[in-house]
Amino acid sequence: MEHIGQRVWAIPEGYIPGASTGPESMASHETACLLNTGDQDAHVEITLFFPDREPAGPHRVTVPARRTVHQRFDELDPQGSVPVGSDYASVLVSDVPIVVQHTRLDSRQPANALLSTVAYAAR
Amino acid sequence: MEHIGQRVWAIPEGYIPGASTGPESMASHETACLLNTGDQDAHVEITLFFPDREPAGPHRVTVPARRTVHQRFDELDPQGSVPVGSDYASVLVSDVPIVVQHTRLDSRQPANALLSTVAYAAR
Amino acid sequence: MEHIGQRVWAIPEGYIPGASTGPESMASHETACLLNTGDQDAHVEITLFFPDREPAGPHRVTVPARRTVHQRFDELDPQGSVPVGSDYASVLVSDVPIVVQHTRLDSRQPANALLSTVAYAAR
Amino acid sequence: MEHIGQRVWAIPEGYIPGASTGPESMASHETACLLNTGDQDAHVEITLFFPDREPAGPHRVTVPARRTVHQRFDELDPQGSVPVGSDYASVLVSDVPIVVQHTRLDSRQPANALLSTVAYAAR
Repeated sequence: MEHIGQRVWAIPEGYIPGASTGPESMASHETACLLNTGDQDAHVEITLFFPDREPAGPHRVTVPARRTVHQRFDELDPQGSVPVGSDYASVLVSDVPIVVQHTRLDSRQPANALLSTVAYAAR
Repeated sequence: MEHIGQRVWAIPEGYIPGASTGPESMASHETACLLNTGDQDAHVEITLFFPDREPAGPHRVTVPARRTVHQRFDELDPQGSVPVGSDYASVLVSDVPIVVQHTRLDSRQPANALLSTVAYAAR
Repeated sequence: MEHIGQRVWAIPEGYIPGASTGPESMASHETACLLNTGDQDAHVEITLFFPDREPAGPHRVTVPARRTVHQRFDELDPQGSVPVGSDYASVLVSDVPIVVQHTRLDSRQPANALLSTVAYAAR
Repeated sequence: MEHIGQRVWAIPEGYIPGASTGPESMASHETACLLNTGDQDAHVEITLFFPDREPAGPHRVTVPARRTVHQRFDELDPQGSVPVGSDYASVLVSDVPIVVQHTRLDSRQPANALLSTVAYAAR
């Protein structure tokens, strides 16, 4: 299949809740769902933006040809620089077209809440 | 009414929760809501993408003229190949323009959670 | 302010939950949020689509100049033709540009769930 | 990084729930998440629309260069003119391109609910 989508995506909302309720599988988290429908691997650079300091990154993720990667933001940086419990935002730049959807699971209170939206495709 | 929408749609986020709480009507599920406003039937091919294997499908769904079909992903393949409890993504290709919206009901914890977004329209 | 938006919008997902938990203010419902930023009244025609029968409507809603109307679908037709507990979809056609966002509150289980997305702008 | 996004955004859905459950950190609220990826500060004017009276504002928010601001609507006007428990909508106009995402946390019932969508980009 051809490469569907665009190369530059933005997610203004970013917030990893600092607490969870329930088992580990229900831990609060935030995910960028990346879909690469084409025959070339997608090399994606994710830059994080904050309210009060310079951007961080880019963090690099590879989405192999004809695969989807649901990238958790808390696992983006092994050094743990992605904040928990404070605001951030992200920009994703890929070398081939991809499609990006943003999802959060929030289980701070008993019973979880979900949000999701297709990210903003800049070009 | 004319055919509103586009012919190629993508949903990067896909995940059917592997557990549910409450009655059968509240079972966790994921749906692609397909709207065909025009006078010709829409023949839709749905291909599934995974993190670790080649795409599956296409699975075929017909949306009759001037009808909506809210297609549950777990009912897409009678042979049960759509995964439960693991990540996937989907691309929908129609022979006439349609509109696609993605919804999940998650009832793994008491009280359900919902997410929804208009899918990404590629062309 | 000028008229922002487009004239034809589609919402493939439509489902008014057939039960609720909690006080009347938390009753399950679905809303089309209509925003008219301009100086002319917007005359909006809402047509409903179903899985198994011909479309119904159009139902007419006026959004006055420089106003927002959050139209509940269950209050769209005084004769009660909008279904509860079954799938539908909708198309909104306005004579001036408007912006449309779709929201559902589901309180079938204790604690409510929410979904929302900007609708699909066809033209 | 260059300025990603657009200059005029609309959010038809606006509603700050009038009650909350749980600790202060879980108070019901509504947020416009603003992302400014570029090297110039973004001066944003937010105008509020209502069902039954003339628009209010604009309220002014600055998003510094290379920063994100998650602006709570209830903190937009120190004089408290943003309504709680009633419908509104908003238009955001920036002097440089930005990206806008809309989120609500509703904790009126025990356990919170979330909604989010990228706002409508007008131009």
